[in-house]
Amino acid sequence: MDFELYSIVFIVTAGAIGLVMIGWIYFWLNRQDAGTDKMKEFAHYIQLGANAFLRREFITIVPFIVVLAIVLLLAMPEHNWQTALGFITGAAFSLLAIFIGMNAATRANVRTTNAARSSVGKALTIAFRGGSVMGLSIVTFNMFGILLLMWIFGININNPSGINMLAGFGFGASLSALFAQLGGGIYTKAADIGADLVGKVEEGVPEDDPRNAAVIADLVGDNVGDCAGRGADLFESGADNVITTMIVAASPIFFAKYGWTGVLFPLIARAIGILATIIGIFIVQGRDDRSPIHSVNLGFFTTAVTCLILFYITARWLMEDVGLFWAQVLGMVGAVAVVIVVQYYTGYHGKPVRETARYAQSGAAVGILQGFAYGLESTVWAKYILGIIILLSYFIGGGGIMGIYYIAAATMGIKEMKGIIMAGDTFGPIADNAAGISEMSGLGEKTRAAGDALDAVGNVTKALAKGYAMSAATMGSMVILFAYLFEVARLRGLELTSIDDFMVNLVNPPNVAGLFAGVAMPYLFSAQTLRAVNKGAHQVIEEVRRQFREIPNLLIGQATPDYARCVDLTTKNALQKMITPTIVSMIIPIIVGFTLGPWALAAYLIGVKASSAALSKAMFNTGGTLDNAKKLIEAGAFGGKGSKAHAAAVAGDTFGDPLKDTAGPSLHILVKLQNIMSITLLPLYIKYGLNLFQ
Amino acid sequence: MDFELYSIVFIVTAGAIGLVMIGWIYFWLNRQDAGTDKMKEFAHYIQLGANAFLRREFITIVPFIVVLAIVLLLAMPEHNWQTALGFITGAAFSLLAIFIGMNAATRANVRTTNAARSSVGKALTIAFRGGSVMGLSIVTFNMFGILLLMWIFGININNPSGINMLAGFGFGASLSALFAQLGGGIYTKAADIGADLVGKVEEGVPEDDPRNAAVIADLVGDNVGDCAGRGADLFESGADNVITTMIVAASPIFFAKYGWTGVLFPLIARAIGILATIIGIFIVQGRDDRSPIHSVNLGFFTTAVTCLILFYITARWLMEDVGLFWAQVLGMVGAVAVVIVVQYYTGYHGKPVRETARYAQSGAAVGILQGFAYGLESTVWAKYILGIIILLSYFIGGGGIMGIYYIAAATMGIKEMKGIIMAGDTFGPIADNAAGISEMSGLGEKTRAAGDALDAVGNVTKALAKGYAMSAATMGSMVILFAYLFEVARLRGLELTSIDDFMVNLVNPPNVAGLFAGVAMPYLFSAQTLRAVNKGAHQVIEEVRRQFREIPNLLIGQATPDYARCVDLTTKNALQKMITPTIVSMIIPIIVGFTLGPWALAAYLIGVKASSAALSKAMFNTGGTLDNAKKLIEAGAFGGKGSKAHAAAVAGDTFGDPLKDTAGPSLHILVKLQNIMSITLLPLYIKYGLNLFQ
Repeated sequence: MDFELYSIVFIVTAGAIGLVMIGWIYFWLNRQDAGTDKMKEFAHYIQLGANAFLRREFITIVPFIVVLAIVLLLAMPEHNWQTALGFITGAAFSLLAIFIGMNAATRANVRTTNAARSSVGKALTIAFRGGSVMGLSIVTFNMFGILLLMWIFGININNPSGINMLAGFGFGASLSALFAQLGGGIYTKAADIGADLVGKVEEGVPEDDPRNAAVIADLVGDNVGDCAGRGADLFESGADNVITTMIVAASPIFFAKYGWTGVLFPLIARAIGILATIIGIFIVQGRDDRSPIHSVNLGFFTTAVTCLILFYITARWLMEDVGLFWAQVLGMVGAVAVVIVVQYYTGYHGKPVRETARYAQSGAAVGILQGFAYGLESTVWAKYILGIIILLSYFIGGGGIMGIYYIAAATMGIKEMKGIIMAGDTFGPIADNAAGISEMSGLGEKTRAAGDALDAVGNVTKALAKGYAMSAATMGSMVILFAYLFEVARLRGLELTSIDDFMVNLVNPPNVAGLFAGVAMPYLFSAQTLRAVNKGAHQVIEEVRRQFREIPNLLIGQATPDYARCVDLTTKNALQKMITPTIVSMIIPIIVGFTLGPWALAAYLIGVKASSAALSKAMFNTGGTLDNAKKLIEAGAFGGKGSKAHAAAVAGDTFGDPLKDTAGPSLHILVKLQNIMSITLLPLYIKYGLNLFQ
Repeated sequence: MDFELYSIVFIVTAGAIGLVMIGWIYFWLNRQDAGTDKMKEFAHYIQLGANAFLRREFITIVPFIVVLAIVLLLAMPEHNWQTALGFITGAAFSLLAIFIGMNAATRANVRTTNAARSSVGKALTIAFRGGSVMGLSIVTFNMFGILLLMWIFGININNPSGINMLAGFGFGASLSALFAQLGGGIYTKAADIGADLVGKVEEGVPEDDPRNAAVIADLVGDNVGDCAGRGADLFESGADNVITTMIVAASPIFFAKYGWTGVLFPLIARAIGILATIIGIFIVQGRDDRSPIHSVNLGFFTTAVTCLILFYITARWLMEDVGLFWAQVLGMVGAVAVVIVVQYYTGYHGKPVRETARYAQSGAAVGILQGFAYGLESTVWAKYILGIIILLSYFIGGGGIMGIYYIAAATMGIKEMKGIIMAGDTFGPIADNAAGISEMSGLGEKTRAAGDALDAVGNVTKALAKGYAMSAATMGSMVILFAYLFEVARLRGLELTSIDDFMVNLVNPPNVAGLFAGVAMPYLFSAQTLRAVNKGAHQVIEEVRRQFREIPNLLIGQATPDYARCVDLTTKNALQKMITPTIVSMIIPIIVGFTLGPWALAAYLIGVKASSAALSKAMFNTGGTLDNAKKLIEAGAFGGKGSKAHAAAVAGDTFGDPLKDTAGPSLHILVKLQNIMSITLLPLYIKYGLNLFQ
């Protein structure tokens, strides 16, 4: 009892500190100077566009949430109101967290620009703190949402059953994340491609030039896609991870070993993550006598060490099992190894980017093919590393069914860093926006140089975030799968003694069919999202062309384009096109669950997982390689800007962008949405399913 | 005993008729007129280049075969000399069959050109018969190789055990197929891209122009890639299918039901296929008063109906189980459904090709992205269709372990058509070559029109062959997997009563790691092959540029380029680059087998299968869609030849070509090679394996 009280106090205190910090940073940001009137005007446009998008996105999502909540309320054979309430809470908290985070980002961008006029260091601090609001909101709201539901449902040490009721929270968070990532991802790339293809390629207008009608839409895209979309992704992956680890821990076999402590452990780990993240954020202090990347690295490093120390203490004296600490170290090592792989394949200094740039000299197709080949290859090493980490953490746990909790601990090792990683990731779009505002406001060479310095930092933090996201998604999806399986066992009344009591026998044809359907799913989903981007880009291209044609004196800079129309077009397309993939990705596992039963659905989920992990990595890294191959040429290699190789590399970047920023990230959410939804709806399949061919 | 005698007599007679027909068609071809001296000269160049490539390819392969045979002889714990002998026989028969088939093709091409000068109908007959030598060689040599080994090993009704010794034959055939497909595939696309990019794009020289130094290499590529490579693929898939179905049938549970008849059944089905193919080949009689496609369709249709009738008779009165017939019908229906999907996604009249062409107006990247998105999507429908076919045939078999034989029967339904499908597929490169020879020899408008008519037929037969190959590969790989599992059961002494006695439990982390490694494998393999093509293309581009620069008067057509150098360069690159992917694809499953054990290896194989099936379909159809989008524009859509959309579509085709003709087809072989190799080496893993984490 004492233990429970202390734990809850620790968790709530950490969360409260997190909330205070969010408020403090937000007001600190607002106190910074936003620069000239022109800068403020452009920033205002961006903020208006981003908020308008988010508002309309929310309005589009709400009916889905409401209808689904009613369905859950009426159809669920057990815990119906809890599931429905959890579902709504998950969606609401997720939207709230990204709303706050994005709002901070759209305030930080122009203040970063202004600071960059005098000091790179100051600009770095502002941009990083701007990003850290998103990072902290996500982890904090996440944890409070779960605590709130536990309190309402009356789940505590005296009543440890019913953890599964929390699955609805994950389902709600996942659904809103899929919408946010899809909507934002389609938006950002449609605007980006559209702006680039007409501006840079057709009319010879440079990037971020105010004459281009799509330029504001492009900058809005950075916020609603890279910032809000990614934030929602990490919110749900955090929620899913905590909840599913708790479900695993609450199952009899682990409860017998770790008791209630094991169930609270993921929340304690999350609290540790919040504290370590706050320390890291304040360590990142830009100074003009130190390279910016150095400051950021110091922040990451401090957070990692703090996590390790606190985690060791918890594992040693609370859980009384140091093996869990080693599993966590393994998880961190694996994530770092994946980051190194990503860096090699997509970094300036690696062979892949250089070779891709070199082959671009033979034309767009050959260059794209080379980048695509490297992207495909990179997937292997990332997958092999994570496969080995899974095996080793399982082995540390002694193999057998008890090893599952160690895989969960390894995953926590990766997820604890989420807050600071997300802060670094949101730093990217803020720096992009800052550069855009600087360019549009004509602030000149010095500010541009500061922007380039920040951009270099952004590239590193993005690669880090990507490698981490890949690792977190792959490892986390294992834990979700186990939670699903434990739920099947619970509902079917299976007594678990060995891992072979879960019979997902891959030789059984219904399971094979499930696996096939799962492996194919990410292909369908990616196809739909890529086509949505293309359609939006096409509309933007037509509109920008029209404005250049119809608005007099636009090209010579003596008229203002109609930015709002491009923003509006892109918003409509993105919101419309995010619906079909979401519905399809919900319907297919429901069909599998109802017709082929829970084991075939498990095979389906494994198929989605394995295939998404491979395809999304290939897409991420293809995009990253092609992007940096273009930048390498722009830096002067193989003929530099304006050469034939450059034109080919620009085409390569255009091809790669939607892969890495729309389809790739959405796949991560797809996996988790399908999984947590299956956990939530499991009682339905068990009660009403047809169980054909079984 | 009577039954065995009659069956063997029937099988051998069908095979003998097949051999006679191969000889007859070959000499019939030789009696046709090869046209003018200029035509003969170009045809001679092509023949020389193709034969030189095949000879050097064989020389490269032989050391691998010899070393591996010695390793098998020394290391295998059981049946060592039989496995080694089977391995050598499989490789030798495969190479012999494709040598004969390709030789016929390089004779048919120029004779088709000559016939086209006077009659499209005659040209069609020659081209189709030219292709049919490959079709018949494959199925006949395949069957005789297996019969020969059965006779040497003394496997017959009195001694039904030891069918597993035949696995070596499949292994040998698969290994040589992987080499042939990789070598040929890298060759053909490197030459094609190289010839196009310098010729068409840089120098404005039309396709197949004799001034282009790479043009002969390009035409050689059609033969060594599309013809010999594909032939080797189908040889091994035929061998694997017969052998693995026999292994399944020889396992106690099926032997108890069907006896020796069940073991011979795949050979009988193959014999039926040979007879039906011969009838179909002679039905294809080009007539000038009938559209060419009509003649070809009639041939396919006749073969299909003949197969169905004979199969019904065999199922009804020999196997005494009409369910097997219905399973076969299902297999055929599934294959036709997949063909329709392929046609929709890659045909002129479908939305995907039209939309891809339309988006090409916005540039190469957008067009490629659209084609890629459709390719990704197409994979889903093909996979779902085959998943349903697998489930239904399993269901016809009553579910449970006995259903496996019905999945095998459905597969036979697809594979029986192999001979005629391959004849149609080889028709494609022959028609391509014929058009090339006609262009180079300057035969004028009428012959070109005839060539276009044949080309239209080729597009249909190619789509048919692709849809069939996808279905055959996916279904066949299921049967191979079952053979693998029955072998594990036999060697481990498991008594099988239910399908759950095969414990490929996907929840067990070593199996998960195996599955992950398997899913990633095709990505690595594709990456290596795509880069190999790019490297070869790069060399060809440099060489063609050099020749245009250094050979005086070449561009105005008053000098002859050095064709042989391009052929030589491409040959060297292809032979060198085919080795690493082959070795890697052999080593990884060996590592999994030795370390994680046979069940994790099964999970690995399932992962490779599921992932390859998805990725290869995506690659095939991406290439097909982009290819036809280009042709649609060339036919006048969206600005026609010379427009911006056309340039973008040419880039799209260049990107798609290696996907559909190098990486995609090699993936099919990869799956089967890894599977049949695992069956062959299984006694090693069982005896010496570490079985870590199990």
